Amino acid sequence: MANAIVSQSGGPTGAINASLVGVIEQACKHNEIANLYGAVHAVAGIVKEDFIDLKTLSADILERVAASPSSALGSSRDKPDAAYCEKVLAVFKKRDIRYFYYIGGNDSANTCHIINQMAQKSGYELRAFHIPKTVDNDLLVTDHCPGFGTAAKFVACALMGDDLDNRALPGIKIDIIMGRHAGFLTGAAALAKQRDDDGPHLIYVPERPVTMERFLAEVEACFKKYGRCVIAASEGICDTDHVTWAEKLSENAERDSHGNVQLSGSGALADFLAAQIKGKLKIKRIRADTFGYLQRSFAGLLSEVDVKEARQCGRLAVQWSMKELNGSVAIKRLGTGANYAADYFRTELKNVAEKTKSVPDEYINAEGNGMTQAFIEYALPLVGPLPKTEYLGTYPKV
Amino acid sequence: MANAIVSQSGGPTGAINASLVGVIEQACKHNEIANLYGAVHAVAGIVKEDFIDLKTLSADILERVAASPSSALGSSRDKPDAAYCEKVLAVFKKRDIRYFYYIGGNDSANTCHIINQMAQKSGYELRAFHIPKTVDNDLLVTDHCPGFGTAAKFVACALMGDDLDNRALPGIKIDIIMGRHAGFLTGAAALAKQRDDDGPHLIYVPERPVTMERFLAEVEACFKKYGRCVIAASEGICDTDHVTWAEKLSENAERDSHGNVQLSGSGALADFLAAQIKGKLKIKRIRADTFGYLQRSFAGLLSEVDVKEARQCGRLAVQWSMKELNGSVAIKRLGTGANYAADYFRTELKNVAEKTKSVPDEYINAEGNGMTQAFIEYALPLVGPLPKTEYLGTYPKV
Repeated sequence: MANAIVSQSGGPTGAINASLVGVIEQACKHNEIANLYGAVHAVAGIVKEDFIDLKTLSADILERVAASPSSALGSSRDKPDAAYCEKVLAVFKKRDIRYFYYIGGNDSANTCHIINQMAQKSGYELRAFHIPKTVDNDLLVTDHCPGFGTAAKFVACALMGDDLDNRALPGIKIDIIMGRHAGFLTGAAALAKQRDDDGPHLIYVPERPVTMERFLAEVEACFKKYGRCVIAASEGICDTDHVTWAEKLSENAERDSHGNVQLSGSGALADFLAAQIKGKLKIKRIRADTFGYLQRSFAGLLSEVDVKEARQCGRLAVQWSMKELNGSVAIKRLGTGANYAADYFRTELKNVAEKTKSVPDEYINAEGNGMTQAFIEYALPLVGPLPKTEYLGTYPKV
Repeated sequence: MANAIVSQSGGPTGAINASLVGVIEQACKHNEIANLYGAVHAVAGIVKEDFIDLKTLSADILERVAASPSSALGSSRDKPDAAYCEKVLAVFKKRDIRYFYYIGGNDSANTCHIINQMAQKSGYELRAFHIPKTVDNDLLVTDHCPGFGTAAKFVACALMGDDLDNRALPGIKIDIIMGRHAGFLTGAAALAKQRDDDGPHLIYVPERPVTMERFLAEVEACFKKYGRCVIAASEGICDTDHVTWAEKLSENAERDSHGNVQLSGSGALADFLAAQIKGKLKIKRIRADTFGYLQRSFAGLLSEVDVKEARQCGRLAVQWSMKELNGSVAIKRLGTGANYAADYFRTELKNVAEKTKSVPDEYINAEGNGMTQAFIEYALPLVGPLPKTEYLGTYPKV
């Protein structure tokens, strides 16, 4: 018998708490685990021994946690170096923690990997498992990441409503969506299209650099065709020199501990694009919204498939840690459309820690300004059923 | 037997289509109404005779319309003058339209009133009914406006998730919410609070002007107390000279046909407030989101009470028009809490057309930076059940 610890790292999502609850409920089934500690604010909470007792939580509380957005244990943006990881390991040793479950993106997989290697070197038996989460859907190996489906549902429902709003009061509408390097979440805007002339009419992902001239020409052509234009653009939209427009417009922008410019939590990019269109195309009604933190932490709007899979990933990490030394939980897709199902497998921590994934070429249209049917078929099962909307203004006239 | 016309005006909402469907289903029950025309894009569509036939729509389509956000017939920001209203009346006469149902805010009630008076003067028998809608909840006479409950639910769910996000990664978070003159929708952010230390910690409505000095002092005090601060501010937040901060920061801002500065569809105000805090309070993590058009047109997130009442308002306008000459549908509140119910009554068009309503004093706290329990009791029944969330980070440590 030994203790276990679980924590959540990086940006919150709508499904990361389902993974946490999966860990808790599975840990309660294993007598090998004496205490299950929840470290508050990720690695920062581990080094401070800021722990709560998770095995004593009632089923009611657990169900509420599983349905709550954001990280119920708090999160951290710390990217621990070797010395930091040594401190983490020292706490593990002090508290007899032999099972480490870390829910996060590729940086978290890397932290998990480093701590695991340190433990091995020092002859300390540790079972280290990474549980994937990210709204960006950019982890390697896994077919998709828990957290993406719920964020994608928000984006799809938002675009669906926004496109109807733009039909009611036509003009240009720009929506800025999260995703610095990977365009999966921005691509999910395509799920909003139900009719041929529905928006988003243009979708810009970071994988397809575009010049301002080309962007404006495509907006103008769309406006001429439809009398309106709804644009979904990634916060990571970049010029053909691969510098993001967000960076170009803001020289003194805030940078995070990874050296990245702050993209979310500001309307600057959206307003910049709106000003470009207004200045050069002489179109009157131009509006720009930045979806910001709502797309990753919105109460009461979950993809059922996503939270179910997220929970299962948490359960399996604990189950596998009884037999295996370490790993990351990955998802394999079985079947398509209505036959969609998920299978799960273990992959090495380093496989997930190394790099991130971009949207594959076959999911982006030839023009680089929209998504393909293959992407729709990839993303829709992860989001689940979407509302069916109706617009009457285009019905035959009498 | 004569023809009827229905149209939707002003900003779309999540419930305005339920009112439209209420009109359609009730009109189908009355043989007095030969054709029910839907005018596309409000008065602009009436003068162009841009009509669709609404009596022939299937029940399936009607249910989809009722559940769709935005205005299914399109909308318009035109504020018709006397000459414009004469054109409307000329079309009514030409097409033998004797029933006029107009869904909108106080400007729409005014248009309905003017056209009704013109008809009376020229001896043309017309039944003119206004059906209330607005996310701002600022119409006179009625207890509340259809459309408010659904938008308020979006705001509450957004703040609930956003506050949990801010717990996970603490800092200052500013959320800008619609409502140029009335703070009801911004106030709905208060519905997100489930725990004593939940955000929004500060709520600023247009009814309570605040100096920048005071705003910054309140943010700083909150940050000292909680280590974080979530702020819900109306887009109409104004200085003690009653000039909105949005106007102060943008001298060349776009103005609409009413002479108002464009507030929505830009992140400028949110970014301005974030910059003020960053510049003067030396707090590191500051984020700002502008909810924009999502709060009024989001697919799949409806207040059931709201859409039920909106539909009933549409039905009653038609029913009453069989006996009464004109009027606006208003809601009276019966009972509180779980005993909440709505009753409906007719009021004169001019009563609704004249002015708008502000948030009453008893709904705003003494400090002018939050809402009272009386407001919660007023707003919650209109929104319906909200998700219950859980945050574990504040649980006792082991």
